[in-house]
Amino acid sequence: MSKPFVAILMGSDSDLPVMEAAFGVLEKFDIPFEVKVTSAHRTPEATHSYVTDADKRGCAAFICAAGMAAHLAGAVSATTLKPVIGVPINGSLDGLDALLSTVQMPGGIPVATVAIGKAGAKNAAYLAAQIIGSSDAEMHQKLVDERRANAEAIIAKDAQLQKDLQQRNAK
Amino acid sequence: MSKPFVAILMGSDSDLPVMEAAFGVLEKFDIPFEVKVTSAHRTPEATHSYVTDADKRGCAAFICAAGMAAHLAGAVSATTLKPVIGVPINGSLDGLDALLSTVQMPGGIPVATVAIGKAGAKNAAYLAAQIIGSSDAEMHQKLVDERRANAEAIIAKDAQLQKDLQQRNAK
Amino acid sequence: MSKPFVAILMGSDSDLPVMEAAFGVLEKFDIPFEVKVTSAHRTPEATHSYVTDADKRGCAAFICAAGMAAHLAGAVSATTLKPVIGVPINGSLDGLDALLSTVQMPGGIPVATVAIGKAGAKNAAYLAAQIIGSSDAEMHQKLVDERRANAEAIIAKDAQLQKDLQQRNAK
Amino acid sequence: MSKPFVAILMGSDSDLPVMEAAFGVLEKFDIPFEVKVTSAHRTPEATHSYVTDADKRGCAAFICAAGMAAHLAGAVSATTLKPVIGVPINGSLDGLDALLSTVQMPGGIPVATVAIGKAGAKNAAYLAAQIIGSSDAEMHQKLVDERRANAEAIIAKDAQLQKDLQQRNAK
Amino acid sequence: MSKPFVAILMGSDSDLPVMEAAFGVLEKFDIPFEVKVTSAHRTPEATHSYVTDADKRGCAAFICAAGMAAHLAGAVSATTLKPVIGVPINGSLDGLDALLSTVQMPGGIPVATVAIGKAGAKNAAYLAAQIIGSSDAEMHQKLVDERRANAEAIIAKDAQLQKDLQQRNAK
Amino acid sequence: MSKPFVAILMGSDSDLPVMEAAFGVLEKFDIPFEVKVTSAHRTPEATHSYVTDADKRGCAAFICAAGMAAHLAGAVSATTLKPVIGVPINGSLDGLDALLSTVQMPGGIPVATVAIGKAGAKNAAYLAAQIIGSSDAEMHQKLVDERRANAEAIIAKDAQLQKDLQQRNAK
Amino acid sequence: MSKPFVAILMGSDSDLPVMEAAFGVLEKFDIPFEVKVTSAHRTPEATHSYVTDADKRGCAAFICAAGMAAHLAGAVSATTLKPVIGVPINGSLDGLDALLSTVQMPGGIPVATVAIGKAGAKNAAYLAAQIIGSSDAEMHQKLVDERRANAEAIIAKDAQLQKDLQQRNAK
Amino acid sequence: MSKPFVAILMGSDSDLPVMEAAFGVLEKFDIPFEVKVTSAHRTPEATHSYVTDADKRGCAAFICAAGMAAHLAGAVSATTLKPVIGVPINGSLDGLDALLSTVQMPGGIPVATVAIGKAGAKNAAYLAAQIIGSSDAEMHQKLVDERRANAEAIIAKDAQLQKDLQQRNAK
Repeated sequence: MSKPFVAILMGSDSDLPVMEAAFGVLEKFDIPFEVKVTSAHRTPEATHSYVTDADKRGCAAFICAAGMAAHLAGAVSATTLKPVIGVPINGSLDGLDALLSTVQMPGGIPVATVAIGKAGAKNAAYLAAQIIGSSDAEMHQKLVDERRANAEAIIAKDAQLQKDLQQRNAK
Repeated sequence: MSKPFVAILMGSDSDLPVMEAAFGVLEKFDIPFEVKVTSAHRTPEATHSYVTDADKRGCAAFICAAGMAAHLAGAVSATTLKPVIGVPINGSLDGLDALLSTVQMPGGIPVATVAIGKAGAKNAAYLAAQIIGSSDAEMHQKLVDERRANAEAIIAKDAQLQKDLQQRNAK
Repeated sequence: MSKPFVAILMGSDSDLPVMEAAFGVLEKFDIPFEVKVTSAHRTPEATHSYVTDADKRGCAAFICAAGMAAHLAGAVSATTLKPVIGVPINGSLDGLDALLSTVQMPGGIPVATVAIGKAGAKNAAYLAAQIIGSSDAEMHQKLVDERRANAEAIIAKDAQLQKDLQQRNAK
Repeated sequence: MSKPFVAILMGSDSDLPVMEAAFGVLEKFDIPFEVKVTSAHRTPEATHSYVTDADKRGCAAFICAAGMAAHLAGAVSATTLKPVIGVPINGSLDGLDALLSTVQMPGGIPVATVAIGKAGAKNAAYLAAQIIGSSDAEMHQKLVDERRANAEAIIAKDAQLQKDLQQRNAK
Repeated sequence: MSKPFVAILMGSDSDLPVMEAAFGVLEKFDIPFEVKVTSAHRTPEATHSYVTDADKRGCAAFICAAGMAAHLAGAVSATTLKPVIGVPINGSLDGLDALLSTVQMPGGIPVATVAIGKAGAKNAAYLAAQIIGSSDAEMHQKLVDERRANAEAIIAKDAQLQKDLQQRNAK
Repeated sequence: MSKPFVAILMGSDSDLPVMEAAFGVLEKFDIPFEVKVTSAHRTPEATHSYVTDADKRGCAAFICAAGMAAHLAGAVSATTLKPVIGVPINGSLDGLDALLSTVQMPGGIPVATVAIGKAGAKNAAYLAAQIIGSSDAEMHQKLVDERRANAEAIIAKDAQLQKDLQQRNAK
Repeated sequence: MSKPFVAILMGSDSDLPVMEAAFGVLEKFDIPFEVKVTSAHRTPEATHSYVTDADKRGCAAFICAAGMAAHLAGAVSATTLKPVIGVPINGSLDGLDALLSTVQMPGGIPVATVAIGKAGAKNAAYLAAQIIGSSDAEMHQKLVDERRANAEAIIAKDAQLQKDLQQRNAK
Repeated sequence: MSKPFVAILMGSDSDLPVMEAAFGVLEKFDIPFEVKVTSAHRTPEATHSYVTDADKRGCAAFICAAGMAAHLAGAVSATTLKPVIGVPINGSLDGLDALLSTVQMPGGIPVATVAIGKAGAKNAAYLAAQIIGSSDAEMHQKLVDERRANAEAIIAKDAQLQKDLQQRNAK
């Protein structure tokens, strides 16, 4: 069986700078991914064709980013039974509109919603990696290792802070 | 040419009690209408087929009611170039989620959004009547007459209130 | 009969940069339009005179833009039985005040509300075109064609993105 | 000169139960008042006529109650230069829509906004009494006396509570 | 009797740039005013002394500006029976915290709340002028005249816009 | 390898009536599940032990339900690298506090958030099934079949509605 | 030195049913407390006298409960340098107004704010106990013991749930 | 007994510029403090170890700053029975997410929440000083003195303003 991949869909190419945070995480875990600019409203047929095709080709999870009345993740979730992750983009109202449009889905058509903006873009990628890792022990181990490295980075930042504070107090 | 009609779509049959307020207004203006329970997410193909067909059969305007992450009006607007009116239903968060999911549409795919709940259901029907009336002088005149009657009803309520207050003061 | 036109009303000339997005859309569809700076509160009589006159001269739809306690669209809807489209302008509170003041109209006086700001300005014009198109087959066809062109533009953006990503990966 | 009076306007007779809290306060201060059911949107001309007439007859302040996209106070403030007090009514969204539609008025057309619902209805009457009292020493004294009585009522409630708590502890 | 004056209180001198919009309006109507930086929380006694004294010296209305948990207007209203006008300042949360802290007063202690920020500062001054004008025919006439001038200014802006649009179309 | 199971954690046994909606969905798909009442704050060690143990025993996904400052899902996500699904419970503020506390997670610790309350409880179960189905073709097929059945149920409801409306019109 | 006590202030006796949750917690820890109905706005002098006196008599912490534009905690914090704990009461807008009016205090006048309503009333008492416990080892130990007991109660509830579920499955 | 100290924890070193406002206040009162960058989610064990250790070493109060789904203060409060003060940081949604995640704690695990951002950082330090001062008469006196100095600073600002206004009027 071919390696599973992640499909990242964006309602507009203006979402690209936010979603690049997801690319970096997926690359870190060596997860192949595709990126597609397609709109639930303006290119519904292209969206439908792409999702149906990606689903058949072994897509493990879809990541969908959209702002305002963010319907893209919901529309994709209506098309596939693979897990769909929604990233609300801050286009107006601080992203509250996109958050509610993404998360408040009716029973039967779930969207796994993450935080608004860049933090959400990152976590969408982590979540996709966890979904792949739930049946792939090697991927799961990579996640365990990466989290430990992350913790160590914070501990290092704290160690640096302690030094800075000591110097400040020494003056 | 056959008489234009209005199509009323609801995401769930639980929206029926709210939307009956629209039926009454349309009946008052002798506007034929169809009612359809269909979901943007759970029956996307049935929704698409119905809208495409209704559009061809002379539907003048679509009224779409949905709650939570209310995508129905947006999905219908993506399918037709007829005017689409969205009624946000209060399913949670006092209907704020449905309002934002309905009104915050991206450029090119408009939804004419009205108030949350029953007031919105009524106004969706009035708006549909105004759209038909914009090219149908007889319908327009009906709207003018009905508004005058409405104003008179409020003036009558005020007259009754003045009597009630006088009686109260006379005591 | 003379060609129907659209009237665009603004509560303040500071709304002009936002509303120019509507001018562009109407020009694309060759829909004649008038622009008027007039206030529901500061020039109520001028507003009333203009709307009554425009209504008689064949105005097909009114587009009203206002911020804060945005009453302009409601006041116009109280004066005419033509469809009235409301564009909430972000003057404070991210435009939430203008949105609620525009959309939450009582039964009988509808305002077809669109998104806050520029996306709403565009969609107000699209909606006006759809209203005209509901009884004008030629206009309706223009809308169908323009939407197809829009879809193609997104598909072209996606094609460009695929190229960019391939180059990036090739490095 | 005839005694100044207060005019209370309501967008709907369903607001009457809330606004009766204002009647009680005005009666306590022997301030004559008129009550009018009239709508900014459904009976704009009747509203305009009434306000213009009341203004000439010596109305000292207007109290306007409305829910949802509450435009009544704003429309009255656009018609008169007497102080206009707005009471937001909770018709939906916990009254947040009515609050923002009432308070966020543009420069030049002020509305003196008070709390949502019954507390606001009371305070509208107190504020009207204060406005009359600002040039009427007798009224001002009544307000001073009434506030002292109110304070004593709270102190009495506290004294009762202390007794209740002592009894509870004695058990 | 000496001429009535308006007292403007600010919780912090950082509110000065916003409140200068009120100074201009009061100067236009030749209304004398005092300006005081004083805090409900940090200088409660100075606030109390000033308000009690200003009240006795003939202050017609108090204007109180504060941000965040804006208690200044409420504290002043608890000290005087003169009308108290509250201006919510945007210090955080777009000023929603200041708005709710100012407007949601309990029965018996009213605060006449106006819009958040500069529009509110202006309207606080207009409202104070209306309160003075409610028993001062000359002031009332000034308000009537100024409003007419304001309306003419908007009509002039519209006339200029019509010229601009014609030139644009002529090209 | 033993069959993967789902662990459902609740911050309080008062969340049980909402979460039973998830049990039904999991039973429909024959997915084994465990239910645990445990609190991020009141029993952090019990929570940690249970999650670590369940993770080792082959738990495929964790579903965490909590209200107010809903930290349970976040705390679980900090303990395991398996996918964690968060269900915000409406305990106050219509559940907005629980939604934001669940979804706004920092980068690296994702929570797959679903809708507030019962719809979210259902979708948490669907999402867990999709995660299992992403590497289990049989489960995936069950999801495909169940969605088709769901669509047919809506189409049947619509058919019934058409009959009801015909009867109503026939009268 | 006499035993430190806690003073509980309420803006209205209608807050009593919510605040009784605090009484229970304080009684569990044998912390003496006083209860006072007093208003920041309606009885500012009585509030000031009571707080000054209680402060001198050895009050360790003040708990202040109020709804709407909840200024009581802020006013008390302006009067004393003892810790002041604020409990927002849900009187309108789901308590969001009381929360923001309580928590958003300017620098120098802190209010230790807890959750809206009953959970907040309980936590105000726990927090007061922790403040006393910060210099009273016996009290601190009581808190440690009580928390352990609380954890055991949750573990017992979970054990009961496991039994219930087994019985259900056995059927 | 050694002098009690305050522990300041931050979820991220990006919170440092905001929290430096707390350092200044603590230094003014000669209160020793420690600063720690540690995360509830990314370094839960380091957080737990540090808090347990600081608690034993005589920490009088914990100040915890975090943004978004701000769980740090809650996690610390679950670990210690010392008072825990939460500072919501504005990372998104104007800090409303962090405020609700911090303040809406369930009964038994209190977090003393202060304002969003810099004002909150300051007040966290004042509150910690008040907690120490509740059993340390010298510290309490420092707080009394500092508040008087603060009041005098505001009075001096007002005196300066009066001079500025006189000069302006003299022109």
